[in-house]
Amino acid sequence: MTDDLHYHVNGDLEPASEATVSVDDRGFRYGDAAFETMRAYGGSIFRWDAHVERLERTCDALSLEHGLSENDLRARIDETLAANDLADAYVRLSITRGVQPGKLTPRPEVDPTVVIYVKPLPRGGLEGEPVWDEPAVVRSVDTRRIPKEAIPAGAKTHNYLNGILARIELARAADDDAKTDDDTADGARESNDGPIPDEAILCDLEGNVAEGATSNLFFVRDGTLLTPSTDCDVLAGITRETVLELAAEADVQTREARYDLADVLEADEVFLTNRTWELRPVATLDGIEIGGGPITDRLSRLYDERVETSCY
Amino acid sequence: MTDDLHYHVNGDLEPASEATVSVDDRGFRYGDAAFETMRAYGGSIFRWDAHVERLERTCDALSLEHGLSENDLRARIDETLAANDLADAYVRLSITRGVQPGKLTPRPEVDPTVVIYVKPLPRGGLEGEPVWDEPAVVRSVDTRRIPKEAIPAGAKTHNYLNGILARIELARAADDDAKTDDDTADGARESNDGPIPDEAILCDLEGNVAEGATSNLFFVRDGTLLTPSTDCDVLAGITRETVLELAAEADVQTREARYDLADVLEADEVFLTNRTWELRPVATLDGIEIGGGPITDRLSRLYDERVETSCY
Repeated sequence: MTDDLHYHVNGDLEPASEATVSVDDRGFRYGDAAFETMRAYGGSIFRWDAHVERLERTCDALSLEHGLSENDLRARIDETLAANDLADAYVRLSITRGVQPGKLTPRPEVDPTVVIYVKPLPRGGLEGEPVWDEPAVVRSVDTRRIPKEAIPAGAKTHNYLNGILARIELARAADDDAKTDDDTADGARESNDGPIPDEAILCDLEGNVAEGATSNLFFVRDGTLLTPSTDCDVLAGITRETVLELAAEADVQTREARYDLADVLEADEVFLTNRTWELRPVATLDGIEIGGGPITDRLSRLYDERVETSCY
Repeated sequence: MTDDLHYHVNGDLEPASEATVSVDDRGFRYGDAAFETMRAYGGSIFRWDAHVERLERTCDALSLEHGLSENDLRARIDETLAANDLADAYVRLSITRGVQPGKLTPRPEVDPTVVIYVKPLPRGGLEGEPVWDEPAVVRSVDTRRIPKEAIPAGAKTHNYLNGILARIELARAADDDAKTDDDTADGARESNDGPIPDEAILCDLEGNVAEGATSNLFFVRDGTLLTPSTDCDVLAGITRETVLELAAEADVQTREARYDLADVLEADEVFLTNRTWELRPVATLDGIEIGGGPITDRLSRLYDERVETSCY
């Protein structure tokens, strides 16, 4: 699918298959880079200002002074969308600390590497369709969220192994399930057979529910919308923020606090949020059926309306 | 310095300045990659078997089945050293999960990206000289080591921001020191003026001393060689292992346990170890003068002898 796409690398549009960075780039050697995942609806980046703000927070945390203006970054994104003839798209912007002489300690003078990735997505908003086919199958994992004392939770960086390890646990568990199923049969076992869940839920080191590998978690109990607070090493997603705003506007009571898995398992509705999924109901958590419901549906509708009025 | 060097990327030797990876490589997007830093002495990789073993442990932790044999990897390294006409060198081997379709959950089938970096180092062994000029100036930092519950401590990966954040703290502290010094002067303040210490010491979340950003920590008290145990989220360095072996052979008593900073500050000798530094005495820790001493010197000598007999 990326065959026909063009990415934007350091000012140039390049066929995605030929877009490269130096092996000495600190983004490659160390994951020393900030990124944002955005969504373009009808050619507009939804909540662009919030993405710019978070990008700057990440760069501050990394002491990464890239020297690029908001307008410059926006122009590169617009150019990339235009070159690919895309109005509804996934957009990822990465800024790395670039190539520096071979020391781990960063130098203050930075010649950043700037990469813009795009791929087509369906239309969003009121007439749109979600990118996902079904409500999410979700499983809690043993991998814990990296605590903010080690890496600031709000920094969105190319160090993504924590989430990958969580997803790998899902794959291993699915594999184990498949093997157990096969024990009842006579034939040879096939590995990697079980369906891999859509998302892993990570707790923080204290056992509080934190978030998914690429999503924030919401649940509803007795009409109140609940979500783990950012005290729990949660990345403050922009979709999460939007959902909390929409709920407040719609007089849905909200609460950000510390919860454990049992709280979520007893919920009336559970959904996940991220930039591309928007709001995605959770079909099952650890095999327990939960699903979305009236508040999930209402907030999804309000989200679509917000996208519609902001972008189309 | 890299101008004339050649790296080895996916089977090809390429000028370092032209060596690249795809922006879609998971090593770039997520730091989803394993690496080893090695040292060649007289054309031989010191403790190659130990590096292969640790690389496999990292790849196991990441469920990264790269499918490359030890001989294949070794042949690539030898080819790279020969092409650069290097016998005494720094060698870094990186294996990434390569390019996969755009999901965070890794696929089991991997077309890995393999990069070998080299750069010249002085001769080692008995007739050699250390790569460092002076004993290390070291400072403890607030950044905590990532706990093993989030990312296995023994995995050596391209997710290196934890160490970078520790080093950034050093730069910020040096900058603050310079500003404070400047307060006594009348003129404009210059930033980034203070000397940046050589290494940052990280503690684990419980406050136990763990390790440096790129080194392991040893100290001597009453003739006993002490080092934080791997319970403290310490990467088990191969130089660390060699030093513990050499001490045991030389009847120097050793102990791996939990220590706090005060224990280190009261030590008779302190030194750091890593592949390129070998053993490097610590001149000061948090401004307190400590230095090396007879046991550090003796172990350095034994290390040089081991290198000499193994490689030259």
